[in-house]
Amino acid sequence: MSVETEQSIATNDERFAAALHRADVVAAELRATAAERDRANRAPREEVELLRRNDLLQVQEPVEHGGDGLSFAQAAQVVRRIARGDTSIAHLIGYHYAQTRVASLFGTPEQDAELSRRNGREKVFWGGVQNPRGGSDVVLSRDGDRFRLDGRRSFASGAGLGDYLSVTAAFEGELLFVALPAGRKGFRALGDWDNIGQRLTDSGGVEFTATPVERHEVLGPDPLTGRTITPYQTLVTPHWQLAFVNFYVGTAEGALDEALDWTRLHGAPWETSGVDSATDDPYVLQTVGELRSEIRAAALLADRAGDALQDALGIGPSITAEQRADAAVAVYEAKYLSTKVALSVASRLFEIQGARATTSAYGFDRHWRNLRTHTVHDPVAYKAREVGDWTLNRRAPAFSLYR
Amino acid sequence: MSVETEQSIATNDERFAAALHRADVVAAELRATAAERDRANRAPREEVELLRRNDLLQVQEPVEHGGDGLSFAQAAQVVRRIARGDTSIAHLIGYHYAQTRVASLFGTPEQDAELSRRNGREKVFWGGVQNPRGGSDVVLSRDGDRFRLDGRRSFASGAGLGDYLSVTAAFEGELLFVALPAGRKGFRALGDWDNIGQRLTDSGGVEFTATPVERHEVLGPDPLTGRTITPYQTLVTPHWQLAFVNFYVGTAEGALDEALDWTRLHGAPWETSGVDSATDDPYVLQTVGELRSEIRAAALLADRAGDALQDALGIGPSITAEQRADAAVAVYEAKYLSTKVALSVASRLFEIQGARATTSAYGFDRHWRNLRTHTVHDPVAYKAREVGDWTLNRRAPAFSLYR
Amino acid sequence: MSVETEQSIATNDERFAAALHRADVVAAELRATAAERDRANRAPREEVELLRRNDLLQVQEPVEHGGDGLSFAQAAQVVRRIARGDTSIAHLIGYHYAQTRVASLFGTPEQDAELSRRNGREKVFWGGVQNPRGGSDVVLSRDGDRFRLDGRRSFASGAGLGDYLSVTAAFEGELLFVALPAGRKGFRALGDWDNIGQRLTDSGGVEFTATPVERHEVLGPDPLTGRTITPYQTLVTPHWQLAFVNFYVGTAEGALDEALDWTRLHGAPWETSGVDSATDDPYVLQTVGELRSEIRAAALLADRAGDALQDALGIGPSITAEQRADAAVAVYEAKYLSTKVALSVASRLFEIQGARATTSAYGFDRHWRNLRTHTVHDPVAYKAREVGDWTLNRRAPAFSLYR
Amino acid sequence: MSVETEQSIATNDERFAAALHRADVVAAELRATAAERDRANRAPREEVELLRRNDLLQVQEPVEHGGDGLSFAQAAQVVRRIARGDTSIAHLIGYHYAQTRVASLFGTPEQDAELSRRNGREKVFWGGVQNPRGGSDVVLSRDGDRFRLDGRRSFASGAGLGDYLSVTAAFEGELLFVALPAGRKGFRALGDWDNIGQRLTDSGGVEFTATPVERHEVLGPDPLTGRTITPYQTLVTPHWQLAFVNFYVGTAEGALDEALDWTRLHGAPWETSGVDSATDDPYVLQTVGELRSEIRAAALLADRAGDALQDALGIGPSITAEQRADAAVAVYEAKYLSTKVALSVASRLFEIQGARATTSAYGFDRHWRNLRTHTVHDPVAYKAREVGDWTLNRRAPAFSLYR
Repeated sequence: MSVETEQSIATNDERFAAALHRADVVAAELRATAAERDRANRAPREEVELLRRNDLLQVQEPVEHGGDGLSFAQAAQVVRRIARGDTSIAHLIGYHYAQTRVASLFGTPEQDAELSRRNGREKVFWGGVQNPRGGSDVVLSRDGDRFRLDGRRSFASGAGLGDYLSVTAAFEGELLFVALPAGRKGFRALGDWDNIGQRLTDSGGVEFTATPVERHEVLGPDPLTGRTITPYQTLVTPHWQLAFVNFYVGTAEGALDEALDWTRLHGAPWETSGVDSATDDPYVLQTVGELRSEIRAAALLADRAGDALQDALGIGPSITAEQRADAAVAVYEAKYLSTKVALSVASRLFEIQGARATTSAYGFDRHWRNLRTHTVHDPVAYKAREVGDWTLNRRAPAFSLYR
Repeated sequence: MSVETEQSIATNDERFAAALHRADVVAAELRATAAERDRANRAPREEVELLRRNDLLQVQEPVEHGGDGLSFAQAAQVVRRIARGDTSIAHLIGYHYAQTRVASLFGTPEQDAELSRRNGREKVFWGGVQNPRGGSDVVLSRDGDRFRLDGRRSFASGAGLGDYLSVTAAFEGELLFVALPAGRKGFRALGDWDNIGQRLTDSGGVEFTATPVERHEVLGPDPLTGRTITPYQTLVTPHWQLAFVNFYVGTAEGALDEALDWTRLHGAPWETSGVDSATDDPYVLQTVGELRSEIRAAALLADRAGDALQDALGIGPSITAEQRADAAVAVYEAKYLSTKVALSVASRLFEIQGARATTSAYGFDRHWRNLRTHTVHDPVAYKAREVGDWTLNRRAPAFSLYR
Repeated sequence: MSVETEQSIATNDERFAAALHRADVVAAELRATAAERDRANRAPREEVELLRRNDLLQVQEPVEHGGDGLSFAQAAQVVRRIARGDTSIAHLIGYHYAQTRVASLFGTPEQDAELSRRNGREKVFWGGVQNPRGGSDVVLSRDGDRFRLDGRRSFASGAGLGDYLSVTAAFEGELLFVALPAGRKGFRALGDWDNIGQRLTDSGGVEFTATPVERHEVLGPDPLTGRTITPYQTLVTPHWQLAFVNFYVGTAEGALDEALDWTRLHGAPWETSGVDSATDDPYVLQTVGELRSEIRAAALLADRAGDALQDALGIGPSITAEQRADAAVAVYEAKYLSTKVALSVASRLFEIQGARATTSAYGFDRHWRNLRTHTVHDPVAYKAREVGDWTLNRRAPAFSLYR
Repeated sequence: MSVETEQSIATNDERFAAALHRADVVAAELRATAAERDRANRAPREEVELLRRNDLLQVQEPVEHGGDGLSFAQAAQVVRRIARGDTSIAHLIGYHYAQTRVASLFGTPEQDAELSRRNGREKVFWGGVQNPRGGSDVVLSRDGDRFRLDGRRSFASGAGLGDYLSVTAAFEGELLFVALPAGRKGFRALGDWDNIGQRLTDSGGVEFTATPVERHEVLGPDPLTGRTITPYQTLVTPHWQLAFVNFYVGTAEGALDEALDWTRLHGAPWETSGVDSATDDPYVLQTVGELRSEIRAAALLADRAGDALQDALGIGPSITAEQRADAAVAVYEAKYLSTKVALSVASRLFEIQGARATTSAYGFDRHWRNLRTHTVHDPVAYKAREVGDWTLNRRAPAFSLYR
C-alpha cells in the first residue's frame, strides 16, 4: 500500500498530527542554522526545498490531490511550529498558505480546483505580490485577447522564489487577483531585500513590464469587474494576519525555549544574588514565569483567532458582514496581543541569560529583529483601534488588504 | 414530571448551560445594586440567599443529590459569570465551590458522600476558615472521645454566614480539615471585616474556644495522622487559586462591559479630539481594543487552567507529583496574567469614560478596590516565580495552602 | 521687630524654605487624619483655615503685602509638599495659587495690584469657576452700567468656600475672567460633589442667576472685547496643569513614604520567601527601588516644568508663541509622566505592603482614588499628543483652558 | 596668546561649553557613519583618534596639564553627547573617563599627579581590564623586586587600543589597581569581541602571561595590602555606572532625533489613518510625546546622579559610608530608569517610522542592539533591589566592582 493510500485513510486529526510532527522536525533543523543563515542572508532557496521535501507546502490541499486536507487554522499551527525554528521561513510558509486560499475565495470553482490540484501534485510554492504599501501601482490591463501586468511593488515576499505568484492588481478601478506561474516574461524580482529582520524572506521589490497574463490566470468569473467583493471574499485579509500572529507566537515560543536551554547550560549566577546558579535567581525565575504565562495567553488567543476564521470560512459565501467582522476582529485581537508579547519576550530574554548571551555567534538578537521588522508591517495601533471600534460601536473594519 | 426528573435526563452540557444562564441572571441582578451594596457594607446574607434560590450553590453535586453534576472547572465558569456582576459574591461562591471539594480530596468515601448529599439536598452554603495568613493558630486537639478547636484566624470568608464551615487546623503537628456545621458552641465570627474592597465577602476574623468537634467531622480515615498528603490531595490549593483567577477575569469582563455601556450613554468627546462623540475618539478606541484583547487572553488562560485542573482531578489518586505540578502551574500562569490584566483594566476604564465617571454614585472604583484587595491575598510575584521554577527547572511548587 | 519686618529682610530663599517648612508641618497634620476625613467627606472648611493659619495662602504675594514673594514655580513646590499629606487640600491650594495669578495676566495693573494687596493682607482663599467641561455656559452680559452673570458649571473647585471666586465667562463671544467676592447675590454653590476621589475639594457645581458684577471686577482694560489673547496671557493654562503635576508627584511621594513606614512596622514576610522579614523580600525590595526611581524622575520633570513656566513668565508680555509653547510643552511632558508614575505607584504600593494593608481604616486606597479621579480631568493621551506635535512638527498647542 | 593660555583664563563653564560643543561635532560626525561602521565591525582606532584630535580625552585633567578641568559629572555629559552619535564610542570614552579617576581614588598623590600630567599632555587613551565577570582571575604577584600579572579576562573594553590599561588584579587576597602602559610584554588582547551590540568597543578578552609590572604602576602607598578600602575609594564603582547611565540616555536622545528626522523626510501616512502625513497620525504623535517625556525624565535623573556623585567626591576622603551610599544609590536609581526608558525608546521608534525604516542600510536596529548588549552588563533588577534596600532599610550597597 502506497504512502498516499495510507494517508487517505488516516483521519484529519492523524494527518494534522503528522504535519505538525514534520513541522517540528523542520523547525529543529532550521533552528540549528538560523543564526548563521541570518548572517549569510542568502535567498532561502534551500529552506523552501526543505519545506517541500517535508510535504509541508500542500498540507491544505485535499488528500486526493496529495495534500493533508488541513484547514487554514490547522495550517496556521504549522506556521507557528516552523517559527519556533526560523521566523523568516515561517513567514514564507505562512504567506504561502494564505496565497493558496485566494483562489477559493476569488476564483471560479474551476480555477480553484485546477490550482489546488497543481498545488497538491506539484508541491507548488507561492510567492506573493500583494502588499500595496509603498505605492501600489501594479496595473492589469487588456492587451488584445489577453491581459498584461505593469508596475512595481516594494515588498513581495517569496516572489523571487515562488513557482507561482499571487498578484493583486488594479483593473479598471477594481482590485483583482492574478495567479501567475513564475518565469513569465517581463517580470523581475529586484532582489533588493536587505532588512534588519526577516532577512530570509526574499521580500524585495518586483517589477512587471508588459507581463502577459492569460484570462484564466485572472481569478474570477466573467465579467471581471462590476461585482461587489463579498464579505466572504474579504476573509482573505484575516488569512494573512492570522499567519502573522502565528509566526509571532511561534517565534516567542522558540526564543524562550532557546533561551532556557542556553541558560541551563551557560547561565552564571549573579555575584550578589546569593544563589549558586542562575537558574535559582529570584528575578530570573520571575521573568521566566511572566514570559511563560504571557506567551501561553498569546498562543491561546491565536488559537481562538484561528477557530474564528475557520468557523467563518465554514459558513461559506452566505456569511454576513457582521460574521466576517467577528472573525476578523478575533484575528486582530490576537494580532495586538501577540505583537506586544512577542516583542517583549524577544527583548527580555537577555535578562534571563545575561551578558554572555550577546555574543554574535548565538544570534539571539535575531528574534527581536525579526519581530520588530514584521510587526511594523501595518501599525498595530490600528488593529487595537479596529478591535475597539467593533467592541464599542459594532463598526466593522472596512475591508482592505490590511484589515 | 418533576423538575428534578427532567434535570436528571438532561446532559451535562445542558445542565451547564442552564447553570450559566442562572448565573447570568443573578449577575445582572447583583450588578444593578453592586455600587450601593458596596457602600452599605452589610453582611451578604441576602446575596447568599439569591445564590441559593437560583440553585447555584449545589451545581457540583451529582444530579441524584439535586445538583447539576458540574465539574470544578465548570463551576469556575459560574464564578466568572457572577463576578461580572459582583466580585464579592463571586468570591463567596468561588470559595464555597472549593470548600465543597475538600471532602472528596481528604475525607473518607462515606464522609464525602454524606456531605455531598447534604450539599445537594439542603443547598448548604460553606464558609471557610482556612487562610493561615496572619498567624495560623487554629488547633485541633483530643477532648476525651471527641475533639475540640481552639484559636483564631484573621481572614475567614463567609464564616459568619456559612451553614457549614471548612476549617483547617493543626493536629499533632499535621494539617487536618474539619467540616463543621454552623452555630457550634465556642465559635465566634468577629464581624470585623472592613476593607477597601471585597467588602461583601464577610471575610473577618473568627475565634474558636473549646469548640467541640465530632470524630466524623474531622475529614479522613483513622488514624488521623501519620499519613503523607498525596499529590492528589494537594490539588486542593489550585482549586482556590482557580476560583480567584475566575473572579478576577469575570470582574474585568463585567467592568469593561459596564464602562462601555456607560460610555455609549454618557461619554462626551474631548474638546480637542476633533470628533463628535467619545465613541469615535482614536485613543478611546485604542484603549478599548487593547483591554478587550487582554481580557480575552486572560479568560482563555483561565479556561486552560480549569481544564488542566480538571484533567488532573480526572486522573484521580494515582496522579504523580509531576502531573500535579503541571496542573497547579497552569493555574498559576493564569493567576499571574489575570492579576495583571484585571488590575490594569479596572484602572484604565476611567480613561475610556472620562471625568464624569468618577461620581461616587456609579461606584466604578469598586472594581479596582475589589481586585487590589484580593490580588494581594498572596503575592503574585511568587506565582510568577513558581511558574518560572517549573518551566526552567522542573521544580514543582512545594505544597502549601498557597501553592 | 515685628515678624513682618523680619520677613521682609529675609531673602527669597529663606522665605521659600520657611514656606516649605510650614507646608511640611501642615502636610503632617493633614496626613494624620486624611483617611478619616476622606471617609467623612465634609466640606474642607477647617483645612482651608489650616492653610490660612499657616500663612500658606499668600506666599506668592509681595513681601510688602504680607506675602513671601514666591514665584509660581516655588508655590508649586508648596503644593507638592501639601500633597504628601492630602491630595485634596493640595488640589485646593494648587488651584488657588493659579487663580491668584489670573489678575496679573489678564487684569489691568490696578486690578492686579488691588487684588494682590487684598490677597496678602486678608489671606484671601480663591475658589474657581473655570472648568468649561460639561457645558460651559456661564455668560457675562451688560446690565445697565453694570454686568451680570448667568449660567451653571458642573465642576468648580473651592467655589463653595472661596472668599473670592475666579470665574471664566463668555462675553459677547469672547472669554473673560471675573474676580468676584463671595456671597454675591444670585450665586449658589450646589454642594453636589461626591466623587470617588479628591473628595475634600469642594468641586461641585455652581449656578449664577443674574449675579451682579461691577466693571472693576471684570479683569482687563476697556474696551473689554476686541483684543487678541496674547501668548503671555495663554500661560494661564500651564499654571493649572503645573499645579496638577505637583499634586500628582507629591501624592506619589507621600503614598510611598506612608507605605514604607507601614511596611517597616507591620509588614510580614511571605511564607515561601525564605526571608525573615518583609523588608528583606527580593520582590518587595525591587518594587520599592523601581517606584523610588520613577517618582524621583517624575519629580525632576515637574521641577523642570516649573522652571520652564517661570522662565516664560520672566520674559513677560513680549513672550513669543514659540516660547510659550516651549513652556507649556515642558509642563505637559511632566503631566504625562507624573500621571503614569503616580497611578502606578498608588496601585503597586499594596504589593509592598501585602493583604493587611487593605483594611479600610488605613485608607490606603485613597491615593489611587484621588489620582484616578483627577488624572481624567483632561485626557492625558492628548497631552502626550501635544508634546509629540511640538517635538515632531513644532506645532504649538492651540490655547484653551486645557492646553 | 597661545590657545592654552586662552583656555586657562576661561571659566569652567566656558570650558565645559566648549567641550560639549566639540562633543556635538564629534557625535554628528560619528552618527553619519555609525550604521556603516557597526556593520564593518573594525577596531575603533580611528574613532579614538577622532576623540583625541578633538581634545575630548583629557577634559577632566587640570587646565595646567592641558585639560579642561571638568568634573566627572561634566565629563559624563560629554559621554551623553557622544552617545547621541555612537553608543560604542560613548562607551569607550565613558570607561576612559572613569578609568582616569582610579588613580585619584587609589593612587598616592604622586601617582595621581604623574598620571594626570601624562593624560593631559599626551592625550592618553585608557583601556580597561576590570570587569571581573566571567571568571576574574587576573593575579598580581611579586616577582623579585617587581611584580607580574597573570591571567585572563573575558571582557576588557578598549584594552586592545589603550595607550594605558587600568587593570584590577588580585594581590595576596586583596583587590589592587594597576596602571599599565600599553605594549607591555606578556599582554595580549584577544580581539575576540563580536557581539550583537556595542560592536565598536573593542571589548574582547585579554591575557596576561608573566607581564612585568613596576612598583609605581601598582596604585597605592606601601604596604600594598592590609588597608581597608574606604567609602571614598568605593566611589569608583558609581563612576562606571554613571558613564553607563549617560550613554544609555544619550543613545535614546540620539535615536529619537534620528527617528524624527527620518519620519519628517520619509514617513508615510497609514492608509486607514485618515490623515495626509505620518506626522499627523494620532498614534505617532502620542508615541513621540511619550518617548520625549520619558527620555527627558531619564536625563534629569542622570543629571541628578552626576551631581550626587560629584558632591560625594567633593566631600573627599572623609566621606561616610552613608554619604557614599546616597551617591551610589542616586546613580543606581538613574541606572534602573535609563535602562528601562532607553530600551523602550530603541524598540518603539519603529512604531513612529513604520516598515520602511527596517531597511538594513539605515541600521536603526543598532540602538536596540547596543542598549540590549550593555544593559545586561550587570542585571538591572539588582540595581532596583539596591535602591529599594537603601530606601526601605537604609542598608547600603556592599561595595563591589558592580555596586
